[in-house]
Amino acid sequence: MTTTVEAHLSINWDSGETGRFHWIWLRDSCLCETCRNAFAKQKYFDAATLPLDIRPRTVTHSVENGLEIVWEDGHESRYPDSWLREHSTPTAPGRPERRWSPWSSAETVADGTFPHADVMADYKALNGALEHLFRYGLVVIRTAEGEAADPDALCARLAGFVDRSYFGEYFDLEVKPDDRTDSISFSTRQLPLHTDIPYYSTPPDYQFLFGLEVNDVAAASQEGRTRFVDGLAAALNLRERDPEAFAVLARTEVIYRAEYAAAEKIYHNQTPIIHLDHEGEVVRLVNNPTKMFFDNVPFDEVPGVYRAYSGFKALMDEEGRAYHHSWRQGDMIIFDNRRILHGRSEFDKSGMRRKLRGGYFSEVELRARARYADETA
Amino acid sequence: MTTTVEAHLSINWDSGETGRFHWIWLRDSCLCETCRNAFAKQKYFDAATLPLDIRPRTVTHSVENGLEIVWEDGHESRYPDSWLREHSTPTAPGRPERRWSPWSSAETVADGTFPHADVMADYKALNGALEHLFRYGLVVIRTAEGEAADPDALCARLAGFVDRSYFGEYFDLEVKPDDRTDSISFSTRQLPLHTDIPYYSTPPDYQFLFGLEVNDVAAASQEGRTRFVDGLAAALNLRERDPEAFAVLARTEVIYRAEYAAAEKIYHNQTPIIHLDHEGEVVRLVNNPTKMFFDNVPFDEVPGVYRAYSGFKALMDEEGRAYHHSWRQGDMIIFDNRRILHGRSEFDKSGMRRKLRGGYFSEVELRARARYADETA
Repeated sequence: MTTTVEAHLSINWDSGETGRFHWIWLRDSCLCETCRNAFAKQKYFDAATLPLDIRPRTVTHSVENGLEIVWEDGHESRYPDSWLREHSTPTAPGRPERRWSPWSSAETVADGTFPHADVMADYKALNGALEHLFRYGLVVIRTAEGEAADPDALCARLAGFVDRSYFGEYFDLEVKPDDRTDSISFSTRQLPLHTDIPYYSTPPDYQFLFGLEVNDVAAASQEGRTRFVDGLAAALNLRERDPEAFAVLARTEVIYRAEYAAAEKIYHNQTPIIHLDHEGEVVRLVNNPTKMFFDNVPFDEVPGVYRAYSGFKALMDEEGRAYHHSWRQGDMIIFDNRRILHGRSEFDKSGMRRKLRGGYFSEVELRARARYADETA
Repeated sequence: MTTTVEAHLSINWDSGETGRFHWIWLRDSCLCETCRNAFAKQKYFDAATLPLDIRPRTVTHSVENGLEIVWEDGHESRYPDSWLREHSTPTAPGRPERRWSPWSSAETVADGTFPHADVMADYKALNGALEHLFRYGLVVIRTAEGEAADPDALCARLAGFVDRSYFGEYFDLEVKPDDRTDSISFSTRQLPLHTDIPYYSTPPDYQFLFGLEVNDVAAASQEGRTRFVDGLAAALNLRERDPEAFAVLARTEVIYRAEYAAAEKIYHNQTPIIHLDHEGEVVRLVNNPTKMFFDNVPFDEVPGVYRAYSGFKALMDEEGRAYHHSWRQGDMIIFDNRRILHGRSEFDKSGMRRKLRGGYFSEVELRARARYADETA
């Protein structure tokens, strides 16, 4: 092993590896009790307070005792050799998190059914379900016949806590009178494909629906099934087939507004239906037809906007693109509200009981849980 | 009044105003009970289901009775004349919400002190406080001597509900033992200027601190004051004075990581300190020195990153730039966690009681409340 002390520290390990370390980085990384809280893994100081040209007074290094530096101000730092090796190349490869696989066939989703018992008991199954969700935007967690499932416990298992909204922790999809309803979702009417809470400037990342009370009539029926379509896949298809329509939907802002006097809130959002990042990649869809108005679109652009929007929805309606979920008691479906549109058919069949509970998760909490499950499994 | 029925509907009102309406937009806007829920102001259908070339069978229009259209399929729509006038020009002028005024002197903030009693009682005062917050990124709500202030009630007044985090609804800044703490914030140590929860891929929009228990010793002391600096103003200054340093901080990602085993969460975020939008405007700062590591920065870039960062923080430390808040019982300060950095000095003065409660608000809830207060005041 050779250790060279110059403008920076160089270590040539016997393995052939080389580590290079800037002095200021080493001082910033000091592991001593005065500099760092070992439990919280936090520093007690701001790196900005270090002299940029900081240099050591003495440096000693051995594989056994590691690196010992006495700085010009007398402060002493010690770094184990294993720690130095670990830190000899920059960590972490950029942002690997945003890998969305578009799908346009229900089979992709059907593969993503995970047993409730496994998800609750096993970190590997939990991580598997979440990774499936991150990738395909939808996952089904199915409770076995006769098994009890508690939506609170399942939400806590998946994310620690839910992302509260205007509706509170949850909303229960029950029938409310038309003249006193916040949303036509609270009815037995059909609902066109949509994303939730479009009047938020940033709608919730993920949504869940849980089969709270589903009887056999509902489970056996085609009525009241929930339909899911990957809007990301549809948007990519639209860009290929009709680039002008895609461009119209990416640049035209539509209006969403919700007035909730009882909550003393007026939500208002103006947003394109297709959101692109600065590289032109699709990062979010916002489309909730029953709450969407084109009132702000300049007169000359109106026909083009209807044409583009109509074409986009026709594409989503293509045969085979949707996953239809027949609800069973205890089913939980989680889906990415930024890319997956959901809707339902009317369900006024007599004797049918279909009460769903819904709510939202933020991506940061799901990711933090998945990371923990992955590193613990 | 002249009404012309062609490719679209034209109305020349006697006032000299002209309204032009596309047929599909009129059909989409039908106000009848079958098409729209008047209470929730939502449509029962998806505009995508309308024929693009829809035309009326008959059109009649008078100021008294408004516009009556019978469509080719027999559906009838009625629009009051006042409604037509309202909708004759596109509504809403883009996005007026993001008007941030940078400040680099404490006086701007001192003007932003609003009495607690007014904010609780009066929509105009509530809206005034929130508008000040949106513009300057910081507002002080001060409880009068002898007046009782309940932080729950004040949070509910401001936002309806708080934005939950890993800490739950709130965190109370109390002293915890160093070997069992999630954060060195829970101590009497000084804290360098920082933004909160940097390990979230999207940190909370707004933060609040509330003086839960502050005794006279604390109120009279310079110790334990909270220092606030507008990072937006500092970033704009940096861009002028040292564009290269600004560019380095806008492109270099740093690492934030928090492992909370008890919560079964591992948060990880890689992010530049200065976030720009696609037009190069500053939209967010993320800088929490005690939790920030440069371990992922390539070796050759390390000195430049320390230099840029150090220069940026030196600029923030310039005389007169900070607002220093001496806490009093019942004070609430709300600040924009995307642009305002906060820190504090050590406070181990004997006899001093300084217990603050903190938490977060999401922008969407504050804006919805401000909009309601504005339209109601």
